[in-house]
Amino acid sequence: MDNELKFKLLKQAFENQMPANKYLGLKILDLKEGFAKIHIPFKEEFIGDYLQKRWHGGIQASIADSAGGIVALTSMQSFNDKVNTIDIRVDYLHGSEPKDLFAEAEIIKDGKRIIKVDVKLYHSKEKIIAVARCAYSILRT
Amino acid sequence: MDNELKFKLLKQAFENQMPANKYLGLKILDLKEGFAKIHIPFKEEFIGDYLQKRWHGGIQASIADSAGGIVALTSMQSFNDKVNTIDIRVDYLHGSEPKDLFAEAEIIKDGKRIIKVDVKLYHSKEKIIAVARCAYSILRT
Amino acid sequence: MDNELKFKLLKQAFENQMPANKYLGLKILDLKEGFAKIHIPFKEEFIGDYLQKRWHGGIQASIADSAGGIVALTSMQSFNDKVNTIDIRVDYLHGSEPKDLFAEAEIIKDGKRIIKVDVKLYHSKEKIIAVARCAYSILRT
Amino acid sequence: MDNELKFKLLKQAFENQMPANKYLGLKILDLKEGFAKIHIPFKEEFIGDYLQKRWHGGIQASIADSAGGIVALTSMQSFNDKVNTIDIRVDYLHGSEPKDLFAEAEIIKDGKRIIKVDVKLYHSKEKIIAVARCAYSILRT
Repeated sequence: MDNELKFKLLKQAFENQMPANKYLGLKILDLKEGFAKIHIPFKEEFIGDYLQKRWHGGIQASIADSAGGIVALTSMQSFNDKVNTIDIRVDYLHGSEPKDLFAEAEIIKDGKRIIKVDVKLYHSKEKIIAVARCAYSILRT
Repeated sequence: MDNELKFKLLKQAFENQMPANKYLGLKILDLKEGFAKIHIPFKEEFIGDYLQKRWHGGIQASIADSAGGIVALTSMQSFNDKVNTIDIRVDYLHGSEPKDLFAEAEIIKDGKRIIKVDVKLYHSKEKIIAVARCAYSILRT
Repeated sequence: MDNELKFKLLKQAFENQMPANKYLGLKILDLKEGFAKIHIPFKEEFIGDYLQKRWHGGIQASIADSAGGIVALTSMQSFNDKVNTIDIRVDYLHGSEPKDLFAEAEIIKDGKRIIKVDVKLYHSKEKIIAVARCAYSILRT
Repeated sequence: MDNELKFKLLKQAFENQMPANKYLGLKILDLKEGFAKIHIPFKEEFIGDYLQKRWHGGIQASIADSAGGIVALTSMQSFNDKVNTIDIRVDYLHGSEPKDLFAEAEIIKDGKRIIKVDVKLYHSKEKIIAVARCAYSILRT
């Protein structure tokens, strides 16, 4: 499998073909084996708490799931491999602000049948807003 | 605290004042002490997997967080109480379809400082698509 | 596969051949397709909080994992199937007391490759002390 | 509050006064503000899978909960503060071996009311066997 092609196609599918990602406006800044960095421009519609103007916790979970999913796909060795989300846990660490978010996702287990990913969300890297731990099943063909 | 007023104001805030909920189009079908039922009309933008036309897992997590949050708020005894999400775990049980979803959220622990909520997502009640377990902190005033 | 034999062998392996289960003193009260009920006699060594004489949260997690694992194994269709724990989440709902615990474990998803189990721990069924949600991978042979 | 005294008393309580920790044989190698390292000598009774001679997943969860709990307690500012486990998630990454385990626990959120801890379990630091994420409530007095 051509790795350069794989990352190019994954980026294209992620940003242009997955409706929810387009809706959320997710942009890939970096994508390589086992790692992804995503940029999510702020939109007013992402606010959950209108008094404190914080990002909705569920929108944060959406971003984490998307970031985790794309990095899980970098483990594919064929375009016929099938990846499904088993579960995701999101922990909220600090209040967010009404400005752009970034997500970094990293594979922490790359097994024959199970992939696990850790995700961090932040405005600036010194202060992590939320962390997620995601489990995916992969059917390798 | 006037309970009828509480539920009326919570419903109004949930549907009209929380930008992310409006964005997602969440509608409350039922809201009472410790229980909520939500209706989420299908939109094309909610699709995560464009080949299989399934709801994005993260959008499902968003719905779960919103449903869990509103039911946690039914535990308030004053409008000055403050509720924050501690963490959420979502388990995906079955593939979803491109049609409306429903969410039922129920408090399973209503503590002095911690509230826990179980959420079920489904198209029809016989087949649960995803379940979530959410932890909230409440500062009672 | 002979189901009666399967449950008999699983019970025997659970109580007599798995060292940690013997150590914890777990006894199967009921075991059938997708469901198990376990009895755990109280021991002083299980106390975590010596002031309040409560069961150690980790010992509760151990019991949940054992109960979840044995019920996952009821999904086997061959003794060559291989089951591994992917992850487990335990939520503590109420303080426990220095007396026997019971665990009920139920399969909530019985997939080709993934099994999920919900577990409840209680002294008496009206008051659930802790709940767990467990994910297992199964390699069906 | 005298920090040196705090760590000394916490170590003593952890190793000698908490029955479950004694039962499991947990020893503190290092304990400071927001960090703990624990040593768990292998015992035959800790084996869950008697064919592959692996540590029981639940025993690993017990260790994670104990390690997470003691590091959460380092956040106390008074001996009257009260810490309770809200929930714990354990992810199993690699098969363990029948030899000693080590646990490192680190506070990732040290809030007014909520503390979160990440735990790693390993035989040797290059290969993490399991990771845990724990949430605690603290009532500061």
